[in-house]
Amino acid sequence: KPLRYAGGVLQMLDQRKLPTEEIWLDYRDYREVAEGIQTMVVRGAPAIGCAAAFGAWFGARDIEAEETGDFLDRFAAVCDHLAASRPTAVNLSWALQRMQGFARNHADRPVEQIKIALEYEALAILEEDERINRAMGRHGQELIPDPARILTHCNAGALATGGYGTALGVIRAAVAAGKQVAVLADETRPFLQGARLTAWELQRDGIDTTLICDNMAGYLMSRGLIDCVIVGADRIAANGDVANKIGTYTVAVLAREHRIPFYVAAPVSTIDLSLADGSLIPIEQRDRREITHIGDIQLAPDNIGVVNPAFDVTPARLVTAIITEHGIATGNYPVRLAELVNCGG
Amino acid sequence: KPLRYAGGVLQMLDQRKLPTEEIWLDYRDYREVAEGIQTMVVRGAPAIGCAAAFGAWFGARDIEAEETGDFLDRFAAVCDHLAASRPTAVNLSWALQRMQGFARNHADRPVEQIKIALEYEALAILEEDERINRAMGRHGQELIPDPARILTHCNAGALATGGYGTALGVIRAAVAAGKQVAVLADETRPFLQGARLTAWELQRDGIDTTLICDNMAGYLMSRGLIDCVIVGADRIAANGDVANKIGTYTVAVLAREHRIPFYVAAPVSTIDLSLADGSLIPIEQRDRREITHIGDIQLAPDNIGVVNPAFDVTPARLVTAIITEHGIATGNYPVRLAELVNCGG
Repeated sequence: KPLRYAGGVLQMLDQRKLPTEEIWLDYRDYREVAEGIQTMVVRGAPAIGCAAAFGAWFGARDIEAEETGDFLDRFAAVCDHLAASRPTAVNLSWALQRMQGFARNHADRPVEQIKIALEYEALAILEEDERINRAMGRHGQELIPDPARILTHCNAGALATGGYGTALGVIRAAVAAGKQVAVLADETRPFLQGARLTAWELQRDGIDTTLICDNMAGYLMSRGLIDCVIVGADRIAANGDVANKIGTYTVAVLAREHRIPFYVAAPVSTIDLSLADGSLIPIEQRDRREITHIGDIQLAPDNIGVVNPAFDVTPARLVTAIITEHGIATGNYPVRLAELVNCGG
Repeated sequence: KPLRYAGGVLQMLDQRKLPTEEIWLDYRDYREVAEGIQTMVVRGAPAIGCAAAFGAWFGARDIEAEETGDFLDRFAAVCDHLAASRPTAVNLSWALQRMQGFARNHADRPVEQIKIALEYEALAILEEDERINRAMGRHGQELIPDPARILTHCNAGALATGGYGTALGVIRAAVAAGKQVAVLADETRPFLQGARLTAWELQRDGIDTTLICDNMAGYLMSRGLIDCVIVGADRIAANGDVANKIGTYTVAVLAREHRIPFYVAAPVSTIDLSLADGSLIPIEQRDRREITHIGDIQLAPDNIGVVNPAFDVTPARLVTAIITEHGIATGNYPVRLAELVNCGG
């Protein structure tokens, strides 16, 4: 699990240092939490939602206001600051809106009581997340054949969530159900979440894992060595278009070419019914240095042009099913996703 | 140019050190040349053919044999050793067969005269290669639109050849013809030939170049930002199936999905008419450390499973055209490739 909370301190596992170092950093201030999200100490859509909830609580705790209206205004500014840390994953703004909604629902209480309620709510968001993922795993594992060679991209695991994982949660549930599972993990350039994080957490669980470069999945599919693909998501539009880590779209095109099922596992908090389709999802552009260097090693000439989109959008037509904690959508996404968000089964 | 020859010494630019260091290594022994090819001091199908020709000459020079039959037997053993350095690029065995054929054609001469002829032939192979690439460029550049945003994968440039390049030779010829060209270079994991070599040599030529991770090409195609793809080849089967750097197949699938032309530029020495189709092309598997480490930096957990195929095969149906020094094949590859190999236009 990437986040621990106790005694007013949020500890985040520094995911930039894995797999060679396990370093926990302490957070007590909302600005520092925002920076930790921006610099990817913590990453993964559900996990940054959880981290942002604690950031909001820290911000709330430090607001010196007697009057509730004043408190709520200043709390909104705290949440806006946190929301600006990364643009693509909707779980971030989802968690912040939940925290603000909770504060407004307690607006008849004294400010000190609202603060206590917000600490409670941040903890609730974190603890719910693992339960949600276990429910997702139960639904999703039924789609996994036995035996299965499963390709995953990026890290949609325990490290990306409050625990257990979304895509890797489905894999864990399939293993727990006794299925024989082998995982192929795309290394996921430039940040190498697959090599550094997915490989690390699956290896610790004793799950058979093989690391490949992103450009090798097509070769393995063409040789009949992959049975299905499962990935997480950072935002899903109302029509089922899925924004996820850069390279996901390529994997989906390859899966379709080889008639391999392509599954997305994400909590309903990742579904953004306010966006009609994926073209409306903002795509974060990150720093050139993520591509041109690894640590202090320079990989490319000085001043070379670089583009570094952190996400891409996979159109709904390439998505075989979307697995949520409330059930599975297979096609007819505009209707089914709305049902799932509204707690339908 | 990656190779220089003078006074019995072959100098190879150490391509493992680019772009931050330009180091030339001296070679005088065939075993060292074989090791330089195996460890990728030199890489690129035509360039390793040229290097192997000099390796063969060094081996021949050092054979102490009075009798021609004895010499030819021992020369065959030298060539077998060189041929085993890398399995996929057919230019390697093509150059060695050419050297051996040349020796056999001079079998009526004294051994010392055969040796002199072999030095001459190695130099001829190197010098021809650049002329071949310029011819390929003249043919190929007619396929390039103006303006053009061209994606390339790996390095099929001057560094991969005797000079000028195959895929990058076509790009250079398009620029020389006055076309407005912007290049997108896949970084090409794990060896990073795109980031380290293609970016370096195009930047030195003042050609507009943008570096991307391999998993970003699909995103850029989906946004309409790529007009065509051009890559080199390590071996082309009689039916037009193309073995090239791992990830090429994925780019070809993406190009077809987006209705973008996918071009292959390679000399006829890359065409292996003895293989009916690409399934017969041997695919080199390289060391796990290429994926798990960059320099001394560890990117993945200890003992994680890894597969590292260095090449993949793109089926002929995804190849819009194959550009050679003798002309262009567009479809009907079994007939057209045989014509081009036999010097037809």
